[in-house]
Amino acid sequence: MDTHRFALLGFGNVGQAFARLLMAKSDELLTQLDLNWQVVGIMTGHHGVAINPTGINLESALAMIAAGDSLDPLSAEPAPQNGTDFIRACNADVLFENTPVSYHDGQPAIEHISTALSAGMHAITANKGPVVHAYRELTKLAQAHKRKFFFESAVMDGAPVFSLWRETLPAAELQSFRGVLNSTTNLILTLMEQGKTFEDAVAYTQSIGIAETDPSGDIEGWDAAIKVAALVTVLMGTNLQPSDVERKGVESLRSKDIQSASADGKRWKLICEAERTDTGIATSVRPELLDPTDPLYNVMGTSSAVTFYSDALGPLTVTESDPGPHTTAYGLLADFINSVR
Amino acid sequence: MDTHRFALLGFGNVGQAFARLLMAKSDELLTQLDLNWQVVGIMTGHHGVAINPTGINLESALAMIAAGDSLDPLSAEPAPQNGTDFIRACNADVLFENTPVSYHDGQPAIEHISTALSAGMHAITANKGPVVHAYRELTKLAQAHKRKFFFESAVMDGAPVFSLWRETLPAAELQSFRGVLNSTTNLILTLMEQGKTFEDAVAYTQSIGIAETDPSGDIEGWDAAIKVAALVTVLMGTNLQPSDVERKGVESLRSKDIQSASADGKRWKLICEAERTDTGIATSVRPELLDPTDPLYNVMGTSSAVTFYSDALGPLTVTESDPGPHTTAYGLLADFINSVR
Repeated sequence: MDTHRFALLGFGNVGQAFARLLMAKSDELLTQLDLNWQVVGIMTGHHGVAINPTGINLESALAMIAAGDSLDPLSAEPAPQNGTDFIRACNADVLFENTPVSYHDGQPAIEHISTALSAGMHAITANKGPVVHAYRELTKLAQAHKRKFFFESAVMDGAPVFSLWRETLPAAELQSFRGVLNSTTNLILTLMEQGKTFEDAVAYTQSIGIAETDPSGDIEGWDAAIKVAALVTVLMGTNLQPSDVERKGVESLRSKDIQSASADGKRWKLICEAERTDTGIATSVRPELLDPTDPLYNVMGTSSAVTFYSDALGPLTVTESDPGPHTTAYGLLADFINSVR
Repeated sequence: MDTHRFALLGFGNVGQAFARLLMAKSDELLTQLDLNWQVVGIMTGHHGVAINPTGINLESALAMIAAGDSLDPLSAEPAPQNGTDFIRACNADVLFENTPVSYHDGQPAIEHISTALSAGMHAITANKGPVVHAYRELTKLAQAHKRKFFFESAVMDGAPVFSLWRETLPAAELQSFRGVLNSTTNLILTLMEQGKTFEDAVAYTQSIGIAETDPSGDIEGWDAAIKVAALVTVLMGTNLQPSDVERKGVESLRSKDIQSASADGKRWKLICEAERTDTGIATSVRPELLDPTDPLYNVMGTSSAVTFYSDALGPLTVTESDPGPHTTAYGLLADFINSVR
C-alpha cells in the first residue's frame, strides 16, 4: 500500500481542523479504505514553514501553532518561503490549498493549484476563487496529468453539492437552482428577527469569527454571488463571473422590515437564483420575502440550503446545518478519498 | 465501445418509464458518457415475454403495452416463461429487476438478482425487499463476480440516498437519521389538513395510484418501517428487519386531531427515526406533532425528506418533491451509469 504524501498550504482554522480530522480518521482510513497518509509539508501565513519527507507530526504542529510558535523547527531542510517553491519542494501527492484567496482574480490559489497539478499532484481546495476564475483551465490541466482538481467545500462547506452532481446525479441536466448560500447574512437576518439591530447583528457575526472585519463582502451579496458563479460555472456548463450576477445585498433591510415581515408570518432571506433561459443563464442574489410554505423559509442561523431543479428528478433540496471549520475540513477529506479511490 | 445489453424483468409503470427515459437520454449517454445500450429482453407480468439478441425496439414495446397487446411477437426466439430462466436466456450485461416483490421474504426478486449476479450481470432494482432481506449476501455475491448490486430507487425514488453515502460521504459515520419517508401517508395527512376526512384522503391516494387497493401497508407504517430497515441495513452496518422497528401508523389520527394541531400552528407527520445506542440501533415509525421550526414541518404532499446526523457534518437534510415513476426510473439509470463507469 502506498502512502499518500500531503502538502498543506495554509494552516489557519480550516487547515488545523483538517489536521485534527486526519488524525481522528487515520485508523478508519487505513482499515476501511486502505488509505495511508503523511503530511510532508505545511506552509503557514505567519508561523513559518516545515518540510519533512519522512512526515511531520501533526500533534506537534498544532500545539506549536496554539502556542504562537513557528513551525520552522519541524522542518528537516531549509524550506522555501513562497507558495509555488514550497509546492515543488514538498514532493507530495496531494496539495491542500487553503490560503486566503483574492476573489477578484483567484490568486495566488490558481497559481498554486496549477503548479501542483503540473507537478503530478491532486489539488484540493475550499477556495471559491480558483473555481470561479479558472475552473475549466484547471480541470483540463488536471485531466492532462491524470489528476483531480476538487473543491467540494467551496460552496456549503463539506455538504455534497459538487460531488452530488458529479457522482450521484449522472446524465441529469441542471435547469435552475434557488438557495440560501451565505451563512453570515442568514445569521444576521435570524438575529434581527430575534430583536437585534442590523449593526448589533453584524457585530455579533464578527465576534464569532464568521464575518470579516470588513463585512461588506457578505452584506452586499458578493459572497453569495461568487457561490452562484461557482455553481453555474461547474454545474451548468457556462463560465460566469460574480459581477455577472444581478446582486442586491441585505444592507437596505432594517429591523422594522424584519419585524413587519414577522408580524405577517413571513421572513426575509437573501435568495440566490440561477435559471437557464433562451439566451443564457439568468442569475440573481437579492432579499426576498418568503411565505412559511417556501422550502427555504425554515433555513435559519448559519444553515444553508439549495433546491436543484433538473430534467431527471423533482425539486431536490440539500440543507446543511451547523457548519464550521470541521465541516469544511471534512469536504477536503472527502475530496481526497474521491481523488484516489 | 461496448454495447451494454439490458434485461428488463418487470415492465409496469416503472419499467415503462425507464424505457422512455432510456430513449430520451440515449444521445446524451453516448456523446457525454460514451455509453451505448440495447434492451435484449423484456418480461412482463401479463403481456408476454420478448428476447432478441439484436435488440428490442422500445417504442414498439411501449405501443404494444399501451394497446394491451402481448410482447411475444417481438421475440426472436421462444422465450422462457419464468424469471430465472428468462434471465439466463437473455445473455445480458445488466438486469433491471422491477417485479412486484414480497416484502415478507423479498422473493422472487432475491432469486432473480442472485441469478443475474451469478451469471456475471450487474443487478439493479427499485425493490426494497431484496435490500432488507438479502443486502449482505447479494453484495458479497456481486463482489465475488466483480459486479454491482445497486438499488438507489428503493428509498426516496431516484433522490440520492444510498449513493450519497457511498460516493459523496466517504469515511463518515451515520449516527442517526430522522425523516418523512412514506409519500402516501404524508399526502393523506396533507389532504386531511385541507379538510378531507381520513377515508376520503385514503380513497384519493388510491385513485391516483400511489396507494394499493389494500392501503394498510402504508397506513399502518409498514412501508415506512421497511425503508427504515433498508437505510439501517445499508448505511448503519447492521441488519434490521421491518418487524424490528417500533411501529405505529396513522390509522388512529382523525380529522379533529389534524385540525386541532393546525389551530395550534402544528402538524402531524409520520416520522421515521433510527439512532445508534449503547446496545444497538433504536428505530421507530410513529406519528409526531411537529412545530413549525421542525425541518420536516414543511414536507407536504408526496414529498419526502430525511435528515442525516453524522460524525462528519452538521445535520444534512435531503428533500425530494414531486416523485413519480419517472424519478424511480432515473434512479435505475443512475445506478446503471455508476455500475459501469
